[in-house]
Amino acid sequence: MDMEKLRECIGKSASYSRTVGESDVYLFGGISGDLHQNHYDEAFMQKTQFKHRIAHGMLVASYMSSAGSLLNDRMEWHTVSYGYDRIRFIKPVFIGDTLLCTETVTRVDDDGKYFADVTAVNQDGVLVAVATHVSKFIDVQE
Amino acid sequence: MDMEKLRECIGKSASYSRTVGESDVYLFGGISGDLHQNHYDEAFMQKTQFKHRIAHGMLVASYMSSAGSLLNDRMEWHTVSYGYDRIRFIKPVFIGDTLLCTETVTRVDDDGKYFADVTAVNQDGVLVAVATHVSKFIDVQE
Repeated sequence: MDMEKLRECIGKSASYSRTVGESDVYLFGGISGDLHQNHYDEAFMQKTQFKHRIAHGMLVASYMSSAGSLLNDRMEWHTVSYGYDRIRFIKPVFIGDTLLCTETVTRVDDDGKYFADVTAVNQDGVLVAVATHVSKFIDVQE
Repeated sequence: MDMEKLRECIGKSASYSRTVGESDVYLFGGISGDLHQNHYDEAFMQKTQFKHRIAHGMLVASYMSSAGSLLNDRMEWHTVSYGYDRIRFIKPVFIGDTLLCTETVTRVDDDGKYFADVTAVNQDGVLVAVATHVSKFIDVQE
């Protein structure tokens, strides 16, 4: 992809919204292997500042990654995920919360990569997580 | 947690190994919402440098997070995930690969956080992903 086409990516954005299902949290434990009590033990969590089971950070990050996937689908870009420069889980996410996750391209480099700001905002308008996502364009033989 | 106890965390390590199941990849799509063809369309992937469906980066990162969860369980630390400073998906991960994920604490700060190097190595000894994980100790009422 030439630089001019790459630069056209800047500002493009897509969102993915989802209510955090208890089933998401419970199935995610089986798929990832992370069965920590923070996510599964309501009685234990009562003894913490959180008071309730919280969603895995990586589950929240996974919802966030779906916004990037949708952006690629919509724009018909062919990329793979190259990494994340910084992820912060700012506020706890609980079962039943509804997150609006948005990925917005902010810059490109001359190596065929784009950098995007990713945010997750809950139903009360509270920013619960942020990330910088790095994606790399790939060639597809037609 | 006082600084002396925090400093004792440095060097502590745990690992989690797992063969990437097709079911992991397929269920992860439903849980995260990321149904991108990179992960589900073998015919499409034949036209790329990868030749086969690749696991979601966030699925690999989720396995990696389980090493941290196991470390906390074993050490009886009470923490929550605070974020990741850098994640890189260095090599593709395919269905059937077996990953050894290891989290090792490298430093602590005076705000009750620890920083850990996280690695994922496949069955051929190839480093496929790295991350820096940040965790924060929490209080639990006994």
